Amino acid sequence: MLEETGPDRLPAYMAMLAAHAQAAAQALATQTSEKKSDALRQAAKIIAEKKDEILRINEIEVEAAEARGQQASFVDRMQLTPARITDICESLKKIADLPDPVGQVIREWSVQNGLEFQRVSTPIGVIAVIYESRPNVTVDAAALAIKSGNAAILRGGSECIETAKILHACFCEGLIAAGLPAYAAQIVATADRDAVGLLLGGLDNKIDLVIPRGGKSLVARVQAEARVPVLSHLDGICHVYLDRDADIEKAVSITLNSKMRRTGVCGAAETLLIDRERLPELLPPVAAALREAGCELRGDHAVTEIDPEIAHAIELDWHTEYLEPVLSIAAVEGVVGAISHIRQFSSGHTESIVTENAGTAQKFLDGVDSAIVLHNASTQFADGGEFGMGAEIGIATGRLHARGPVGLEELTTYKTVVRGDGQIRP
Amino acid sequence: MLEETGPDRLPAYMAMLAAHAQAAAQALATQTSEKKSDALRQAAKIIAEKKDEILRINEIEVEAAEARGQQASFVDRMQLTPARITDICESLKKIADLPDPVGQVIREWSVQNGLEFQRVSTPIGVIAVIYESRPNVTVDAAALAIKSGNAAILRGGSECIETAKILHACFCEGLIAAGLPAYAAQIVATADRDAVGLLLGGLDNKIDLVIPRGGKSLVARVQAEARVPVLSHLDGICHVYLDRDADIEKAVSITLNSKMRRTGVCGAAETLLIDRERLPELLPPVAAALREAGCELRGDHAVTEIDPEIAHAIELDWHTEYLEPVLSIAAVEGVVGAISHIRQFSSGHTESIVTENAGTAQKFLDGVDSAIVLHNASTQFADGGEFGMGAEIGIATGRLHARGPVGLEELTTYKTVVRGDGQIRP
Repeated sequence: MLEETGPDRLPAYMAMLAAHAQAAAQALATQTSEKKSDALRQAAKIIAEKKDEILRINEIEVEAAEARGQQASFVDRMQLTPARITDICESLKKIADLPDPVGQVIREWSVQNGLEFQRVSTPIGVIAVIYESRPNVTVDAAALAIKSGNAAILRGGSECIETAKILHACFCEGLIAAGLPAYAAQIVATADRDAVGLLLGGLDNKIDLVIPRGGKSLVARVQAEARVPVLSHLDGICHVYLDRDADIEKAVSITLNSKMRRTGVCGAAETLLIDRERLPELLPPVAAALREAGCELRGDHAVTEIDPEIAHAIELDWHTEYLEPVLSIAAVEGVVGAISHIRQFSSGHTESIVTENAGTAQKFLDGVDSAIVLHNASTQFADGGEFGMGAEIGIATGRLHARGPVGLEELTTYKTVVRGDGQIRP
Repeated sequence: MLEETGPDRLPAYMAMLAAHAQAAAQALATQTSEKKSDALRQAAKIIAEKKDEILRINEIEVEAAEARGQQASFVDRMQLTPARITDICESLKKIADLPDPVGQVIREWSVQNGLEFQRVSTPIGVIAVIYESRPNVTVDAAALAIKSGNAAILRGGSECIETAKILHACFCEGLIAAGLPAYAAQIVATADRDAVGLLLGGLDNKIDLVIPRGGKSLVARVQAEARVPVLSHLDGICHVYLDRDADIEKAVSITLNSKMRRTGVCGAAETLLIDRERLPELLPPVAAALREAGCELRGDHAVTEIDPEIAHAIELDWHTEYLEPVLSIAAVEGVVGAISHIRQFSSGHTESIVTENAGTAQKFLDGVDSAIVLHNASTQFADGGEFGMGAEIGIATGRLHARGPVGLEELTTYKTVVRGDGQIRP
């Protein structure tokens, strides 16, 4: 297909993908849970069987990327190993085992004239997933879409397109083996960058949702260009606030874990706020633990006055998602000051308060308007798996439809079913 | 304010509205139900007190519209009467009495490490409502926004701007009397059409949601231009399907009510589908009742063959929302044919099946993917009030966040509150 699409053929090709996806979505919407799960299990089996071929194709692409001088971290992300293929298959089986999010009666009620109402969960329709050169996303995104009754159009990074294509082919074999339409998961089989623009344009209202998975520049492009709804997050400027009533041990361990468990994830803390009233007592042990773990610290005036080894933070620091072992630290006037700082600088992702005072905690949980707010727990719990959701396709910081982890349930919408016995409206 | 904004001042003016709205939304998010409801009741009192002044201002605008030769239906919609002002006040009190949609625990769960999760409803933030020259929308939209903890920016039709402004001023007095920020409901006090474009652009990410209320051209412009989420519907091409197992009496009364109760509403039926197997029996009584009520009929070949007085429908008819006493009629191959016709031509708003066969009804309710699907009931029940939702700001046919009537609950989003005891992620 790659060779068949030239620039002039691209719109027709994309329109075809969209039409197939729409038809497949309609067929998929009323399939049984058993069939959908069976497709994922069959796909896992087929991927395991074709492991050697997948690895061979991936190796060619990895070598080409290395020859082009791609960064080691980039190459690592696109590289498959036998263990990583096993992980992909395990993930498929795990998603297959999750409860079906479609057809759930979310609420039931009736009104005086006897009409009975049910709000029932339904698939969204056609979901376009735009991601970078990460082979596992091809399978993960397709599996989450199918399990939630949606058709997927997958657009992966061009450096890894052949790996994505063979994984996709295996996935489709799973769909077919389960008696589901193969078009339920399609891959954009061209590296042409204009394909992304067409997806973001909605392809004549046939794309119902776009989910970008990848770095900031990808997400920013999707958010800026999309003419259809997007579930995504751009920044994860997460805060930990150590209150005057914080337990010192928890303050140290939660701050350390929030920042340093993994610094490159969106739920990693970027700014530490400390109640000015207890700054002299809380800062030293926290700073010592962070330093020992290799974290660079930047503080405001109050902070550097107590610990002159901490560098001076500039305004930009409060706006920065480092994604590195760097933490900015500010003193604030209690929980009100913390809420106010977070309102000004947070990206609405995840914030945590450490305090033994239940009233103060409640003030923070009420007053901070981020997708996820925690009390006495690490910001690194910002993850669908940790939420008990089984799997997630990403985290959303927009305000509509889904906030926080986007799992199977968040990939559904609803309709209202009304049952009467001949009622007409007066 | 109107006179102070020139074309060059407009962006600064709109940015100011947005900044005020954002600040007000933050203040409003944690207000008590009592205060919010009190504001609406106070506003009702003030509007009732200022009735004469409101009527006087409205009369000037009505006369000006008539002098410009506006259509009678347009003038009727913008005109206030003592009875209509009473309705506005009653609506305010009704919304005040509804349960607070904010702060509701939607779900609670915990995971093995002891973390406790709550999904809690929160306001969306800043909602821009763009509407035509209908004075009641100013008050209704503001009331629904405030009750759900959101700040509103109101932009009404220019022909009625002075009426909207005095109603808005009364509303703000209500806010102030209840101790809430007056900026929680702002009106765009200029007729400059570029103001709408700026709202649709999101004003530097300060507008969280746009709701258009009005005719198709307004909604189409909003859908085409908005860079922020929109809840709306463009068309209401609603279908009634008379199944082979339909009760004739219900078939007649539901079709008649769905089409003719009010022909200008979005939930009015535009196309009637009849099971071919029972067409000769079902068509005549239904057609007779519709004709007697003054409805023009257009049918496909099978329909006109039985009743040659029915005009021939053309392809365009199946795509048309008449909003007039006109109905297109097609014969279909049972429920499967009905679902297929609806998939092709429906706008995803509301469809109804008339049948005594529960299995067939379920097939229809499952297979038709519209916001509202009914069994043995009129499509004209497509209304938040009839759903028992108390009030609605409109009906949404998009697929994300809200489908069907948009009431107070649909004007909220959620956050996840996580309570721990020092948990860190391994």
